[in-house]
Amino acid sequence: MSERATAAAIRAGDRAALARAITTVESTRSDHRIAAERLVGELLPHTGSALRLGISGAPGVGKSTLIEALGLFLVGKGRRLAVLAVDPSSVRSGGSILGDKTRMGELARHDHVFIRPSPAGATLGGVARRTREAMVLCEAWGADVMIVETVGVGQSETAVAGMVDVFLLLASPGGGDELQGVKRGIMELADVVAVTKADGDLAAAAGRALSEYASALRLMRPPADGAPATAVSVSALDRRGIDGLWAELDRRYVEMEGSGALARRRAAHARDWMWGEVREGLVSLTHNGPAAETARRLDEAVATGALLPAAAAQQILDALGGAR
Amino acid sequence: MSERATAAAIRAGDRAALARAITTVESTRSDHRIAAERLVGELLPHTGSALRLGISGAPGVGKSTLIEALGLFLVGKGRRLAVLAVDPSSVRSGGSILGDKTRMGELARHDHVFIRPSPAGATLGGVARRTREAMVLCEAWGADVMIVETVGVGQSETAVAGMVDVFLLLASPGGGDELQGVKRGIMELADVVAVTKADGDLAAAAGRALSEYASALRLMRPPADGAPATAVSVSALDRRGIDGLWAELDRRYVEMEGSGALARRRAAHARDWMWGEVREGLVSLTHNGPAAETARRLDEAVATGALLPAAAAQQILDALGGAR
Repeated sequence: MSERATAAAIRAGDRAALARAITTVESTRSDHRIAAERLVGELLPHTGSALRLGISGAPGVGKSTLIEALGLFLVGKGRRLAVLAVDPSSVRSGGSILGDKTRMGELARHDHVFIRPSPAGATLGGVARRTREAMVLCEAWGADVMIVETVGVGQSETAVAGMVDVFLLLASPGGGDELQGVKRGIMELADVVAVTKADGDLAAAAGRALSEYASALRLMRPPADGAPATAVSVSALDRRGIDGLWAELDRRYVEMEGSGALARRRAAHARDWMWGEVREGLVSLTHNGPAAETARRLDEAVATGALLPAAAAQQILDALGGAR
Repeated sequence: MSERATAAAIRAGDRAALARAITTVESTRSDHRIAAERLVGELLPHTGSALRLGISGAPGVGKSTLIEALGLFLVGKGRRLAVLAVDPSSVRSGGSILGDKTRMGELARHDHVFIRPSPAGATLGGVARRTREAMVLCEAWGADVMIVETVGVGQSETAVAGMVDVFLLLASPGGGDELQGVKRGIMELADVVAVTKADGDLAAAAGRALSEYASALRLMRPPADGAPATAVSVSALDRRGIDGLWAELDRRYVEMEGSGALARRRAAHARDWMWGEVREGLVSLTHNGPAAETARRLDEAVATGALLPAAAAQQILDALGGAR
């Protein structure tokens, strides 16, 4: 199928065409790369109206269960939903989040839902680029809620926060020694923290965790261009709190849209993406080009304290034939 | 004076020679740059035994007062102390932190103390490089406690956290609406949070703030290679809690030294510094070289959503004559 025909099929809501196109986007073959870039470029103008939602949380927090409950709630309201996963750790573990679609069996079968596991065998940079391109395809397919899930244990959170409009952090109930804790740096990214499993034996613990997170969030100033972060609690099991959670996410989105903050955030994300790719392209020159051997040697000398890092950097730049 | 003579004077503890050398480090004149790099390279082997302490906190939190109290406590114990400031905001404001040395009048007059305000008129990258070089000079001069102060409102905290062994965040007492709040991202950097002004009318509020910060820190996992963050309260006015604060900072340092974490953290910082300079050097090519006009145009197209950032990045790399 030509890119034009594929683009038309995706825009007509063809789920199989979308799945095939994402496979092309994930491929590293150079002819696939060219086709993917053409397709994404073609579809880019037909995107932008979805709420882009990042969801993160440590393993065991109940991410799949929550996404399934939220997803079913949304399709029940006539929304179209796509879920992508970012998990560069799957490179090492061999596994991948969302890999087992049966975890979200009921949701995955729905016509208005598209779920895609994280591609394996790629660096964070590679996964991030593919995810951004896949988001374009999903939005062109008609997703009006675009969920990007990540695993809550690494740098991928920062990458996802740079792709989405609203960032939701899931946290476990439990207090004191039981408290799993949120990885440093991640709470700072959250627009909304949702304490999961607020049901049964854990209901009281979830209540305490909710007030602890709310008070921790109050200690941090809101981001420059956003509302203060908020905390809620949910039970995916009892399907309780899901409507309140969605109301909060949607309220933030609508407010940002009205104030112009959404457009500014998205423009900043697009710029960061471009400059990130430029930096990666340039730095790869120092790792793969003629300066690579010099760079390796100097990296070692700098780590042992034998050489001043600024002087070493200048030697690497000189080896690249770059300017000061 | 030749670099060799200057180096010898600094190592002999000559405060005036240290001050002049830092002026050379801060200069952008190319002959000064060459002299500075030689000098820093010469002194680098004579450094590394100081406790490098980062101190941050929003304006009004009582940073100068705390540094003066802590500094007097340390020189009373026979320590030698240097204080440098990182404040790229002084570029805009025209002012500079530590600029008014009379704020630390008693401390600044002490023979075993060297205090230097933030150099004005530079970018964060420039200030960070000069600060790192100035740290080398101060440590070679004999500082065994090397304080790097920053202002708690910008990106400079991340830069400072990348230079120090222990990062101390100062926080104001007060609760509810009074709570000033800590800028997002900064609490995550803290090894120790100290609630200031735990005296007089604010004593009770400081107690409440202390337990709030302690509980917020418990919600975050410790850094990969460090102990969990802790919270203490101090009164610089009553000189109360200063000994406990120092004991906590020193305990962490000694533990890190024993476990090898200190050496690993410093090696990682040196590597980050080198690669940061390489990236800056490369990116400056895209802003000042023949590709600059292309880059400006594409940056705009990307922000408005007209062009896919990955495609724009490739065009910039092509314009630079770089490889994919």
